[in-house]
Amino acid sequence: MQKRLGKQTVVFEAPPRIAAGGTIVGDVEGEGPLGSYFDLVLQDDTWGEESWEKAERKMFEHAVRRALARCAMQPPQIDLLLGGDLLNQIITANFAARELSIPFLGLYGACSTMAESLLLGSMLIDGGYAERVACAATSHFCTAERQYRFPLEMGGQTTPTAQRTVTGAGASLLVAPGYAGNAQFEHIFATGGTIGRVVDLGITDASNMGAAMAPAAADTLAAHLREKECSVTDYDVIVTGDLGRFGSEMFAELCRDKGIDLANRHQDCGNMIFSPAQKVDCGGSGCGCSAVTLNAYLLKRMEQGDFTRMLFMATGALMSPTAGMQGDSIPGIAHAVVLERR
Amino acid sequence: MQKRLGKQTVVFEAPPRIAAGGTIVGDVEGEGPLGSYFDLVLQDDTWGEESWEKAERKMFEHAVRRALARCAMQPPQIDLLLGGDLLNQIITANFAARELSIPFLGLYGACSTMAESLLLGSMLIDGGYAERVACAATSHFCTAERQYRFPLEMGGQTTPTAQRTVTGAGASLLVAPGYAGNAQFEHIFATGGTIGRVVDLGITDASNMGAAMAPAAADTLAAHLREKECSVTDYDVIVTGDLGRFGSEMFAELCRDKGIDLANRHQDCGNMIFSPAQKVDCGGSGCGCSAVTLNAYLLKRMEQGDFTRMLFMATGALMSPTAGMQGDSIPGIAHAVVLERR
Repeated sequence: MQKRLGKQTVVFEAPPRIAAGGTIVGDVEGEGPLGSYFDLVLQDDTWGEESWEKAERKMFEHAVRRALARCAMQPPQIDLLLGGDLLNQIITANFAARELSIPFLGLYGACSTMAESLLLGSMLIDGGYAERVACAATSHFCTAERQYRFPLEMGGQTTPTAQRTVTGAGASLLVAPGYAGNAQFEHIFATGGTIGRVVDLGITDASNMGAAMAPAAADTLAAHLREKECSVTDYDVIVTGDLGRFGSEMFAELCRDKGIDLANRHQDCGNMIFSPAQKVDCGGSGCGCSAVTLNAYLLKRMEQGDFTRMLFMATGALMSPTAGMQGDSIPGIAHAVVLERR
Repeated sequence: MQKRLGKQTVVFEAPPRIAAGGTIVGDVEGEGPLGSYFDLVLQDDTWGEESWEKAERKMFEHAVRRALARCAMQPPQIDLLLGGDLLNQIITANFAARELSIPFLGLYGACSTMAESLLLGSMLIDGGYAERVACAATSHFCTAERQYRFPLEMGGQTTPTAQRTVTGAGASLLVAPGYAGNAQFEHIFATGGTIGRVVDLGITDASNMGAAMAPAAADTLAAHLREKECSVTDYDVIVTGDLGRFGSEMFAELCRDKGIDLANRHQDCGNMIFSPAQKVDCGGSGCGCSAVTLNAYLLKRMEQGDFTRMLFMATGALMSPTAGMQGDSIPGIAHAVVLERR
């Protein structure tokens, strides 16, 4: 069987299953439209820790443990942990991996991390190198703001294109198709995906992440449709990670330029997670945004049969304060995973 | 065929080949014992760019192009780029990936990145998802010092356990075993490897990276020998990434505690790249250290038959200024790749 189509797209011979998901979010996310779907909503975003960074790593660890618990598993039964976060040196993932003591490959794909980890995890299971892989990503509003933008204590105003970094950790447990143990989901399989390229249309505004990521999302979608020789209508839903309201409009326009009609099938996790009444400008962002929306909401809807084929495409803005200060623009990347109900 | 042994170790069914390597280093590295092996020695560590960061990304890009040129290939002929660096948001790798326009999966494994990328690239080729994968890692003394320690302009004194971050970029081109085109190396195959866990013995000194990484190296070596049911003497050489002089002593001691005799087979890239006369304290470090030593020196010696079986184990100190300020220790990780001459 041909496992590679064209340059960027892969197809799995024996599609791995997503057996379970685990999610933890902050209070603002808990008050949003998806609030009732999350496993745990924190009332205190330090979760009793001394710093937001320490809270974030505790969230990463516990989202993984939550997904495993749904399959009655403990960390020593997991072959591999794949994941990352937005903090420098991915300290959230590193420190959580230390606590979990699972063999670990650290990833940095900014907000595309959830899709990057699912894509890699699926290839490693289908390739025969692992049977159970935990994939996870986190972000935290307070740690991200102070690292990427301004100290929260400053109380700065946001711009109309700004998005709010989601405080949330999401984890998926991928298993080899023969797995017959306890599971939250029985019907969800990762059947393929498309590896993204770094795309840059020259956006330099750190408060306009959606615009920085939209070109990468359009590039990856176009590559996917071309290489897999399929069309938008082959999917019930095409989900992007965190383009937000403005980025989603730009994504639709860039797709139109490439001759792709999204046919009302596009949804964005950044638009789903908050309601307009929450006044979060253009929606949610951060790698936790797509991680929790997928694991808490989208997979449950898929399992119960609301849709059969989903293209999950998490988008990352490869933003760096250092590069920004040196006059650089913000490149983007998007990785896509095909999830099917069988 | 069993592709997985125990929890952490993998074996490749059809081992991918390393067809070529490319390296660029700074002037201090050029004056060291391996100086004549590097493809390009920069006399100016900004390489004509406005900042060290911009120089570093140019080095990453050109090390990849150099490896490809040896096989008469251009970036569009490469399926996948895997790599990373030490800078926040791995901006070196991201911006280089933008220029190369190769599908890209970003990794963060600190100084273990070269082994992490070779291990993943080999699994993806052996698994059938790619035929040609470029793996690369970089570090730069000037960008690392100012991000992790002190402004260079301060002219601070180093401590006796300090290591010097290598200014260097190294890239390997991995190809599927059937490849019959131009190549620098004909006989070097990646036959397996061991994925590391995050290990932490509580080191908190940012000038003692060797001690932070040695426990992870010993943990990964022990797992490798146990799971592969082999012994140290099955390898002609066991190469660690950048433990340096002090870290290498600690590694030997930790191995002895685990009942492993290194039998004079251990060498460390951090000890090889500088001579004692260069006064770099405990040796070299940074993910460029093992990347350039492997691609410029070790692979050439292997190709000419000086040794047949090498365990290449790059070691990463998962150090973070933010975590350090919050009182955290520096965890380490080590990934190992088995390279064989056939």
